[in-house]
Amino acid sequence: MDVKDLIKQSLSEDIGSGDITTDSLELVKTITQASVIAKEDGVIAGLNVFYEVFKQVDPEIKITLYKRDGDKVENKEPIAKLEGNPVSLLKGERVALNFIQRMSGIASQTAKMVEQLAGTEARLLDTRKTTPMLRQLEKYAVKVGGGLNHRFGLYDMIMLKENHIRAAGSITKAVGMVKKNNCTYKIEVEVTNLKELQEAVEAKVDRVMLDNMDLESMKKAVALYKGKVELEASGNVRLETIREIAETGVDYISSGAITHSYKSLDISLLFREN
Amino acid sequence: MDVKDLIKQSLSEDIGSGDITTDSLELVKTITQASVIAKEDGVIAGLNVFYEVFKQVDPEIKITLYKRDGDKVENKEPIAKLEGNPVSLLKGERVALNFIQRMSGIASQTAKMVEQLAGTEARLLDTRKTTPMLRQLEKYAVKVGGGLNHRFGLYDMIMLKENHIRAAGSITKAVGMVKKNNCTYKIEVEVTNLKELQEAVEAKVDRVMLDNMDLESMKKAVALYKGKVELEASGNVRLETIREIAETGVDYISSGAITHSYKSLDISLLFREN
Amino acid sequence: MDVKDLIKQSLSEDIGSGDITTDSLELVKTITQASVIAKEDGVIAGLNVFYEVFKQVDPEIKITLYKRDGDKVENKEPIAKLEGNPVSLLKGERVALNFIQRMSGIASQTAKMVEQLAGTEARLLDTRKTTPMLRQLEKYAVKVGGGLNHRFGLYDMIMLKENHIRAAGSITKAVGMVKKNNCTYKIEVEVTNLKELQEAVEAKVDRVMLDNMDLESMKKAVALYKGKVELEASGNVRLETIREIAETGVDYISSGAITHSYKSLDISLLFREN
Amino acid sequence: MDVKDLIKQSLSEDIGSGDITTDSLELVKTITQASVIAKEDGVIAGLNVFYEVFKQVDPEIKITLYKRDGDKVENKEPIAKLEGNPVSLLKGERVALNFIQRMSGIASQTAKMVEQLAGTEARLLDTRKTTPMLRQLEKYAVKVGGGLNHRFGLYDMIMLKENHIRAAGSITKAVGMVKKNNCTYKIEVEVTNLKELQEAVEAKVDRVMLDNMDLESMKKAVALYKGKVELEASGNVRLETIREIAETGVDYISSGAITHSYKSLDISLLFREN
Amino acid sequence: MDVKDLIKQSLSEDIGSGDITTDSLELVKTITQASVIAKEDGVIAGLNVFYEVFKQVDPEIKITLYKRDGDKVENKEPIAKLEGNPVSLLKGERVALNFIQRMSGIASQTAKMVEQLAGTEARLLDTRKTTPMLRQLEKYAVKVGGGLNHRFGLYDMIMLKENHIRAAGSITKAVGMVKKNNCTYKIEVEVTNLKELQEAVEAKVDRVMLDNMDLESMKKAVALYKGKVELEASGNVRLETIREIAETGVDYISSGAITHSYKSLDISLLFREN
Amino acid sequence: MDVKDLIKQSLSEDIGSGDITTDSLELVKTITQASVIAKEDGVIAGLNVFYEVFKQVDPEIKITLYKRDGDKVENKEPIAKLEGNPVSLLKGERVALNFIQRMSGIASQTAKMVEQLAGTEARLLDTRKTTPMLRQLEKYAVKVGGGLNHRFGLYDMIMLKENHIRAAGSITKAVGMVKKNNCTYKIEVEVTNLKELQEAVEAKVDRVMLDNMDLESMKKAVALYKGKVELEASGNVRLETIREIAETGVDYISSGAITHSYKSLDISLLFREN
Repeated sequence: MDVKDLIKQSLSEDIGSGDITTDSLELVKTITQASVIAKEDGVIAGLNVFYEVFKQVDPEIKITLYKRDGDKVENKEPIAKLEGNPVSLLKGERVALNFIQRMSGIASQTAKMVEQLAGTEARLLDTRKTTPMLRQLEKYAVKVGGGLNHRFGLYDMIMLKENHIRAAGSITKAVGMVKKNNCTYKIEVEVTNLKELQEAVEAKVDRVMLDNMDLESMKKAVALYKGKVELEASGNVRLETIREIAETGVDYISSGAITHSYKSLDISLLFREN
Repeated sequence: MDVKDLIKQSLSEDIGSGDITTDSLELVKTITQASVIAKEDGVIAGLNVFYEVFKQVDPEIKITLYKRDGDKVENKEPIAKLEGNPVSLLKGERVALNFIQRMSGIASQTAKMVEQLAGTEARLLDTRKTTPMLRQLEKYAVKVGGGLNHRFGLYDMIMLKENHIRAAGSITKAVGMVKKNNCTYKIEVEVTNLKELQEAVEAKVDRVMLDNMDLESMKKAVALYKGKVELEASGNVRLETIREIAETGVDYISSGAITHSYKSLDISLLFREN
Repeated sequence: MDVKDLIKQSLSEDIGSGDITTDSLELVKTITQASVIAKEDGVIAGLNVFYEVFKQVDPEIKITLYKRDGDKVENKEPIAKLEGNPVSLLKGERVALNFIQRMSGIASQTAKMVEQLAGTEARLLDTRKTTPMLRQLEKYAVKVGGGLNHRFGLYDMIMLKENHIRAAGSITKAVGMVKKNNCTYKIEVEVTNLKELQEAVEAKVDRVMLDNMDLESMKKAVALYKGKVELEASGNVRLETIREIAETGVDYISSGAITHSYKSLDISLLFREN
Repeated sequence: MDVKDLIKQSLSEDIGSGDITTDSLELVKTITQASVIAKEDGVIAGLNVFYEVFKQVDPEIKITLYKRDGDKVENKEPIAKLEGNPVSLLKGERVALNFIQRMSGIASQTAKMVEQLAGTEARLLDTRKTTPMLRQLEKYAVKVGGGLNHRFGLYDMIMLKENHIRAAGSITKAVGMVKKNNCTYKIEVEVTNLKELQEAVEAKVDRVMLDNMDLESMKKAVALYKGKVELEASGNVRLETIREIAETGVDYISSGAITHSYKSLDISLLFREN
Repeated sequence: MDVKDLIKQSLSEDIGSGDITTDSLELVKTITQASVIAKEDGVIAGLNVFYEVFKQVDPEIKITLYKRDGDKVENKEPIAKLEGNPVSLLKGERVALNFIQRMSGIASQTAKMVEQLAGTEARLLDTRKTTPMLRQLEKYAVKVGGGLNHRFGLYDMIMLKENHIRAAGSITKAVGMVKKNNCTYKIEVEVTNLKELQEAVEAKVDRVMLDNMDLESMKKAVALYKGKVELEASGNVRLETIREIAETGVDYISSGAITHSYKSLDISLLFREN
Repeated sequence: MDVKDLIKQSLSEDIGSGDITTDSLELVKTITQASVIAKEDGVIAGLNVFYEVFKQVDPEIKITLYKRDGDKVENKEPIAKLEGNPVSLLKGERVALNFIQRMSGIASQTAKMVEQLAGTEARLLDTRKTTPMLRQLEKYAVKVGGGLNHRFGLYDMIMLKENHIRAAGSITKAVGMVKKNNCTYKIEVEVTNLKELQEAVEAKVDRVMLDNMDLESMKKAVALYKGKVELEASGNVRLETIREIAETGVDYISSGAITHSYKSLDISLLFREN
């Protein structure tokens, strides 16, 4: 489902058989101005989605953006101005905010974590722990916040987890099967200790995920294999811990929480008083 | 979009053109057991969705549920057991968890807030600040957690907010227009002070939303109008503040945060070792 | 399904794999004028749908409307003028007429019944006995004809019918369950005699439907409860009987026939002779 | 859109975000019996659609049909018996009836007109004046009632109407163009007098539609061309007039009213008392 | 599925979760010119589809067509010029070419076979052996190449094949059943020898398909029945054999290979050097 | 669009508003046996699709498969047996064959080319020159025939072609941008000479596509860089030339023709005589 369809469905979810409040008022056609304003500090993401929501409701709404995706905003700072039929503005308001508040929430939290990585070689990655139907938008928000995207789904990177390895018999066998059938995708293997790591390196994979390893083990992994294989740390990644993980020298740190437990950024849409 | 379609689309979002990892392994058909286990305390919601995800991937997966929606779980407690082809289990795992973790996160947070209301007459309501595409499921999770649902969208209750009232001229005029065109829906009006509240009561609306009123004003509203109109408190509703709001005597308290800024409940799916 | 999709699907239903007649003629591109003319007296409804059909077929067709929804038309009176490529006009003609003739038929019949209510307090309501896929448009036509809309579906009003009451045990029990789980919707109960009516009033429902009651019973119901609960008459509602039902003093009269057995209004689209 | 999708969409139209009445009652799972009964005489059509509606709502509902499409029913005669969860029966009831009442209404009216044709050589045809989205089902109902189907849309028969002929220059030119581009479809031409009829016959079309001709002209057309071209009468076809039209000797008589202005057959679904 | 949806789906198939190459380059917005050039001789078909692909990707791309569908092109001849954002051109390129190369391949091969028919009375027909989802476009390409279209599907012509005849008992019985139920469509019968042919003619069908008959038998069929029934030859139709089949005097020759085994016409899209 | 939907749409394309032939015959319900037989030698692919087509038409058809995808078949060899209602078999026949004949045609041609690679290190790759809507199935058929799949679309591998490089300024700059924004996908660069090849290798890409290089240049490329970067030959790949290309020592050879200009494998479905 592409973004336009997603927005169409989301509007349909909210409007359903009709906006019974606004439609009951028999409003004459007038033009109203509305301001979109940040209610707390953060990083904005999702302005294109915000824009498209209102354009689908009513192509004649004029939208002036004061910010671009990735820009920082402070509490009370204006983000955009809308001008149009108040009936249309009221129909699009909630859906537009529901999108941009979530996306900006993700970008803001990502930016805070990325800040912790300054001066290290580590890059922050997302995961597949995204909201169903919104993966595209949430991963986009991660990029806006300064992170990199891990694979988008089961279709664009090979990732051999513990269960795959058990089923195949060993890392070596699993990687062998993958290489026989496949030449297009990077191969990542999940390892939990240095022995498995060695086996993965010898099987010539592109990346290893160091799953819930302690800091000491990660440092050893870096000492042994940095540059020979990409090293991705995973597990217990929080704002408080990410810096010390990065300082082990790993190449990537992946966080599920930036998409599975985010806080929406508070943003309001206010009609101007006449 | 109904729940089955939503799940179908969500699986498509994750699997896309194919599960290139699992499909590369040429696994023989075997049966694997997997355990679904809570990794923290909370309230479970979304077992039907969890079930349907796997049934869509492979109708032959056997699913045994140890819990029902609304049950409490403790860290390490088993929630369900799956038996089936490991290829199928791996394809459905992430989507199934992405749903149930979010829904259980909402139910768990709702339950905590509802607990604070014990002994008061207030009921907790949700809002339209839900994740696009998931409103149905998120509002269901609120109910599972002990809350009540506010309107589902713009189509099933009349809600006159400040902007509607301005456009119509006054509360009295707005309500008059609504009643002329309409006889099926309850009418709620947003008010910010006691004067507006009085006007709304005289216009014979069903409910008023006391928007960001202080506790004293809410108490006065209760003293004057309780039983004549339903009173709904809104604004600054947090786990720390909800009890004192409830003690003013309002009938309802609505919270956007339970759906716009929830934390997923940590749940894992582990293959059993053979 | 929104109206634009409905129109798209309806055009697809008619045009299918192509308009083999018109496409075979290899017509050069010319501009034709066509007149849309009423062939009998009535009330017009559906001009927006009519407009959208032609816009989807060919955005360059110019459409001049001489009437607005709700306007009366007389036999031979012009409703609209079309100018555009004859190929496009021929492709949209049948679908556009199929919509507007049905919608105008409903509006016309509704208007006749509403006329009978003049001077009484009763308002005419529709039902859910609408044509599958067209409920939105048919209920809109009822409003255009001067009626009010009853609930749109199972999702926007509580309606306890005889079968619900049996299943729950009694009116009192059924209403109790509904109120425990729900605070957003009006509650209507179907009653067949004054005893059930009394029970419903005591359970504090918003409306009762007096199902197939005779005129005497309805008068008693009005005498006892008018103003305490909304009273809706249902059953045997025809153009010949509606006045005497209204004169009992009920608040609402609902009619299934205005949507399940309407007669299309005769409207033709004629190409102007050159 | 196939019939299964149409039913799915129609259920979605009625149920929307949920059956708030039934779902509020927390009914325990029981089995209820319901009878589907005719409330007036007529011909039944649409039993498969009726069946499919309930199967989509709940595959475990048991449906026993006492009639087949095309069977006559009398007032109070049972048509089918349903057994299943009352929650499911209540969800499907309205949509199932909305389909079968309309389809049976068409079949019943068609049967009445077909009866008038007894002993003549004329067959009754439908038109494209069907309800948007329901053409397939309505034309099926015409067949059930004893009629034949005219073309399904613009895609399956060539039909040159007055406007096509004007655009092409003459009947002869229009037919020539059609034959140059096309060899798969029958060709019908609309004519309004005997001169046009002669031209159409000479152009070797398959059928002519005698548009609003008087009875005398139709008799002449039959005398001159019967057996050389199929003759279809159109215009002013009513139950009162169809016999005399048929007696002119035409091959076909087409009626728009059987699909654009039908009366639903009254059918009820009643839960059995326990 | 209409052509716009088909193109939308085809773009989605290629672009999926995003054009990761182009999007990574952070290209500034510039305008690029690109030439669409034939790389071999042939007949062009599909320019409207080509155009629509790019318009869906980016409505601001300017497209200048140097050819029209049905025009011959020679190796190295320009077909069209594109001007627009290179990001957009790169996103649409492959899908646009995938359509037009196939459609032009069909038109080119059809044209070669039609050339062989010069001076005979035979016309070339296609079959239902088309690529799933692309029948509309492939049959259009056949017309562009000078062929005629046989039926589009099971819905627009009666075609009694051997299996139908067996099931019905005989050609006579099968045709009788068809005529009883049906008056809108032409009837074709597949025959394999002159006896069956005679039976079909006597049953008054519109066309017979002479299935895999040898040239002598076809000549006899023509001698006996030409003008009384349409004669369609089928089987072993190749560029080398089509002329001698046509010279038997049959009316139509149908070829599955022009749609089931075509060779794409080589066409390239080249960015102009700056 | 997943395979089930694709099949559903393809059946809808063929059946449209109904199978007017079979439905007219009023066939009693019987069981017929049908044999699916190869009419030439080749490799079978698409049996699952074949199976699913019939299951969608009628779940009660019994299908016995004598072959598995990838098996060789000889002329006249049976592939499968069907048993079921002849009405259902006739409805599914053409669509099922249209899929399996194309997929088997691709697998057969792929297998012939792969045979030529015996003893070399080269593997055969497909391209994105697939039929719109059928990429998934066509790439699957390539694998069945012994080839490997190149990227599925623009979303799963980075591929810098000449136009990308021009837009970015140089290979070095383009690869730099890609690596800044991206860590999940393999990077391939198209090069046309050894100088560009050197630049690509120094930029540390994963693979280079040697575009239309002559055999001598390819040999030099292999001598210089084999093992340091994956080498993919492209251009002028035919059954006659593929062996000598492989013998240069390249790792991969990609062919557009195996999907853009295939010949369907001849397969027939014959009803058994009773």
